[in-house]
Amino acid sequence: MSVLIVGTIALDSIKTPFGDKRDILGGSAVYAAVASSFFASTTMIGPIGHDFPKEHLDFLGSRDINLNALHKIDGPTFRWQGYYEYDMNQAHTVDTKLNILTSFDPKVPEGLRDTPYVFLANLDPELQLKVIAQLKRPQFIVADTMNFWIESKKDVLHQLIKKVDLMVMNEGEIRQFMETPNIPLAARRLIELGCRGVIVKKGEHGALFFNKDEYFSAPSYPQEELKDPTGAGDTFGGAFIGYLAKSDDRSAENIRRAVVVGSVMASFNVEDFSLERMKRLKLKEVRARFEMIRGCTKFNELAASHWE
Amino acid sequence: MSVLIVGTIALDSIKTPFGDKRDILGGSAVYAAVASSFFASTTMIGPIGHDFPKEHLDFLGSRDINLNALHKIDGPTFRWQGYYEYDMNQAHTVDTKLNILTSFDPKVPEGLRDTPYVFLANLDPELQLKVIAQLKRPQFIVADTMNFWIESKKDVLHQLIKKVDLMVMNEGEIRQFMETPNIPLAARRLIELGCRGVIVKKGEHGALFFNKDEYFSAPSYPQEELKDPTGAGDTFGGAFIGYLAKSDDRSAENIRRAVVVGSVMASFNVEDFSLERMKRLKLKEVRARFEMIRGCTKFNELAASHWE
Repeated sequence: MSVLIVGTIALDSIKTPFGDKRDILGGSAVYAAVASSFFASTTMIGPIGHDFPKEHLDFLGSRDINLNALHKIDGPTFRWQGYYEYDMNQAHTVDTKLNILTSFDPKVPEGLRDTPYVFLANLDPELQLKVIAQLKRPQFIVADTMNFWIESKKDVLHQLIKKVDLMVMNEGEIRQFMETPNIPLAARRLIELGCRGVIVKKGEHGALFFNKDEYFSAPSYPQEELKDPTGAGDTFGGAFIGYLAKSDDRSAENIRRAVVVGSVMASFNVEDFSLERMKRLKLKEVRARFEMIRGCTKFNELAASHWE
Repeated sequence: MSVLIVGTIALDSIKTPFGDKRDILGGSAVYAAVASSFFASTTMIGPIGHDFPKEHLDFLGSRDINLNALHKIDGPTFRWQGYYEYDMNQAHTVDTKLNILTSFDPKVPEGLRDTPYVFLANLDPELQLKVIAQLKRPQFIVADTMNFWIESKKDVLHQLIKKVDLMVMNEGEIRQFMETPNIPLAARRLIELGCRGVIVKKGEHGALFFNKDEYFSAPSYPQEELKDPTGAGDTFGGAFIGYLAKSDDRSAENIRRAVVVGSVMASFNVEDFSLERMKRLKLKEVRARFEMIRGCTKFNELAASHWE
């Protein structure tokens, strides 16, 4: 099954303890689409400016990502500049130049409106709603967001979560959105607001999946290589939707696997800047890390003799 | 098999968003011994002052904890006063009155020196070393510590970790001790220093176990009830050693189970102040939560058809 991804396309300037890079490929749609392309036929919608380098389009095309629905807008591409300090859990923004992002008005071409699996990567929730309005049901729609939208467009997010199958948020975002430090409680409240399920990304602490009946805790890979965390959440979301589309199985059992696949892809992505690690990544490495994590979480039931 | 626990005995005054309690039963040895007593015959060594309430001794005795080796010292009992704010991840100390703790010099009675399972709960590492010096090998020794000792007695901790089978630290402590924000790297470095294994307690994010060959990630219980986190780490350690002693099985497979048993007991302990929840706790509740967590972590291998 095929995947549609809508989000931002960026040129990032990033400094971490491991390097300082200028105008490298980034953006929520880019990270997500590249991760999804490992599994499924993927179309990416996002805005590029007149200065967007052809080499990046060539790379995305080489991954068989459909770029026909990109929005080419006259003006400079969206740019984000930031840095990470020693612990790398928190991105610090130095400068955001929205540029052409302010005139991005996503249009889904007629032939793509029935794409079965849709990931609305981090973007203004009003635009995410506009995309949904163009889609033909039934789809499986997953949406990501960020603290900026929680602070500035909370009401719009309330509308959005009623229209998606799964929200993806990081732990800080869901705490902030639901106004409680308790993640299980926050997840329950979010679902009560009309969201069918939620995935909570916890970075080095793994990820959680909640719906009305299910709770799943996925561990993280024991990551010693960590050069640049930018795009980890987008990579998670893209791999999650790509794997679901590939397997075309939305059972709770398979969603568990998809959460782990997403975590594994994100664990590779942070090993280098931009999409550099993804360019070298082989599917067999993903599979090996998936199985390694499976081994790290197994524990057996209690023997009666150890207990009574 | 039996368990020996050495640590502090305290009267705590604690304020959380859910209540404000004065001079309630606490201390690292108390939380650990009560948790251990659910599984194994447990002896507790620690100092009590002239003002230590008889009702607390009666409660500990009612759990079949051997109190014959308590150190009764003339003077007031150790007191800690602290509070937790809304997110309850961080204890804030208001006042610490060491009182008789400063003259505590632990003596292990001759008949207890060959106790097979030993938990050195949080205490001055010099005293922890003094206890080890009195023990007769072979034992399985687990030691806990805290940031205060990492800051003030790092060299002593270096000696200690060479003499124990497992160190138990929380995530902040191991980062501080090994001077890296990366937990897997910190764990590897700790093991290189001569420690046979390490458990990293991550509170709401579960716990990790590392040794030279193994990595195990245990999830946390999805806790919505959280009244007072005091003693969660000590409860974890006590339940861990108690369960190991009960099963008398130190295989990596069983250590995984013991980590989950420890997490489960800690998840009950935080549901009320002091030892109140432990007083009401039934072993069948522990077992049910263990099985619930087992269900929350399972995921299946990837189907070839979902992958190739």
